Amino acid sequence: MAEFNKVVIFGVGLIGGSFALGLRAAGAVEEVVGFGRSPKSLQQALDLGVIDRAGINPAHELSDADLVLLATPVGQMPEIMARIVPYLGPETVVTDGGSTKGDVVAAARAAFGERIGQFVPAHPIAGAENSGAAAARADLYRERKVVLTPLPENSVLNVAKVRSAWEWCGAQIYELTPAEHDRVFAAVSHLPHLLSFALVHDLAVRENKELFFTFAASGFRDFTRIAASHPEMWRDICLANKDALLLELDSYRAQLDELHQALAAGDGRRLEEIFDTARTARRDWAEGKR
Amino acid sequence: MAEFNKVVIFGVGLIGGSFALGLRAAGAVEEVVGFGRSPKSLQQALDLGVIDRAGINPAHELSDADLVLLATPVGQMPEIMARIVPYLGPETVVTDGGSTKGDVVAAARAAFGERIGQFVPAHPIAGAENSGAAAARADLYRERKVVLTPLPENSVLNVAKVRSAWEWCGAQIYELTPAEHDRVFAAVSHLPHLLSFALVHDLAVRENKELFFTFAASGFRDFTRIAASHPEMWRDICLANKDALLLELDSYRAQLDELHQALAAGDGRRLEEIFDTARTARRDWAEGKR
Repeated sequence: MAEFNKVVIFGVGLIGGSFALGLRAAGAVEEVVGFGRSPKSLQQALDLGVIDRAGINPAHELSDADLVLLATPVGQMPEIMARIVPYLGPETVVTDGGSTKGDVVAAARAAFGERIGQFVPAHPIAGAENSGAAAARADLYRERKVVLTPLPENSVLNVAKVRSAWEWCGAQIYELTPAEHDRVFAAVSHLPHLLSFALVHDLAVRENKELFFTFAASGFRDFTRIAASHPEMWRDICLANKDALLLELDSYRAQLDELHQALAAGDGRRLEEIFDTARTARRDWAEGKR
Repeated sequence: MAEFNKVVIFGVGLIGGSFALGLRAAGAVEEVVGFGRSPKSLQQALDLGVIDRAGINPAHELSDADLVLLATPVGQMPEIMARIVPYLGPETVVTDGGSTKGDVVAAARAAFGERIGQFVPAHPIAGAENSGAAAARADLYRERKVVLTPLPENSVLNVAKVRSAWEWCGAQIYELTPAEHDRVFAAVSHLPHLLSFALVHDLAVRENKELFFTFAASGFRDFTRIAASHPEMWRDICLANKDALLLELDSYRAQLDELHQALAAGDGRRLEEIFDTARTARRDWAEGKR
């Protein structure tokens, strides 16, 4: 008997599809039901064996579901939450895969009301270059990090259920508060994306941009890889995490001001100090990753 | 009979060593003589067949040299130039591999005086993670770009000689003025390095830095790869190209101010516009590279 009798997934793309495949590969789920806005994606998820059935009416699928994953863009979550809450069984736990947490929690509080204890927010750290059900892989989360941001209203049992599902997928589980989560990801993910977009944009609007791009090499390539990310998705992430991102952007601008000052003054010692501290930290980080 | 009878290289590390190996592999040089500050590096270059001989006294090696490459850090070039100019033969052409050009040209004008026509500045765009003679490869410059920044005093013949040497190494040759070169590389190389160092430094000095580094993932990894670059070398590059780099830094700070404003105002349309322009330009660039 599998740990989860029935798992319902909203959004059968890379994130939701890989969650389904991971649970299935581990033998941790009996039945996976998928919902999605696009019939084509649902059909693809069926054809690829990502889901067992495409759901038709949430009202018929949720009362006996053990676990519901919201794996749609964050912007669609408030509407889906409002649609599903009335039909959740008393034991059903809902989680999400959104990359910002403060806004998702606010939407969940509005939609779940007194049932907010049934919603355990989460963020799987598994970006990938491809998207869609066809890109889903059973091992996407293997040895990847998943951050749970439990709410005070969550029971230990409900948090354990979500933790267990991600562990079946092979993930390493961490817990942060939603605010900690958003501050951390503003710094290590959202800000770098903003900075990378900014650099390429600054060049792209120049009349003689070809001259610049002609000589861009491997350093530029690495630095700007994330500037090829999806504009709409990153607009939404930036807006959703606006407050934390503005704080990080302010901190970074102060850092650039200091570098500007050191450079203008020809203060090589300070420049080298900053570069050296950065290199040491970057190396320590990279070695810890291995 | 090879095109170059004798090539003299100052600095037998990755840049100078690969130049020597490239010319030798192409059969374009009879004899390569190496000079270096470290006897150990010279011995290594000899053992690896990068050079034929280690030079002892520049006074004895330069009058019959066809080509001299200065492949040391830029900071050492003024001293080397002053030492070699008195001994150059009338046909000897000197070039360099420095990654900034305005400062190298200024040093060359001071050292070469009326013989400045014999100095043809160049910048091979071939960064690599490793350094030293042991990292040298005959194919390092194959299909890589080399920028010549000829001076008005250079004869067509002297420029052609330097161009030909790099072509033997398999490189694609471009020509810019020294000022154009420095502006372009400030934008596509020096600024990204500064920005990447700045991001890591901003995190590295926080008391709770471990929390941040724990959740840094692939986007952070790519963005900060160049923050593992050599601090002393990058201090020198930044100082050498200070004026152009400050201009680029100002332009970038203005770009960040605009993003800050759009974000603070919740102007999703402007954010998406900027991200979209950047993504399109990044994609076009990456496709052009293929």
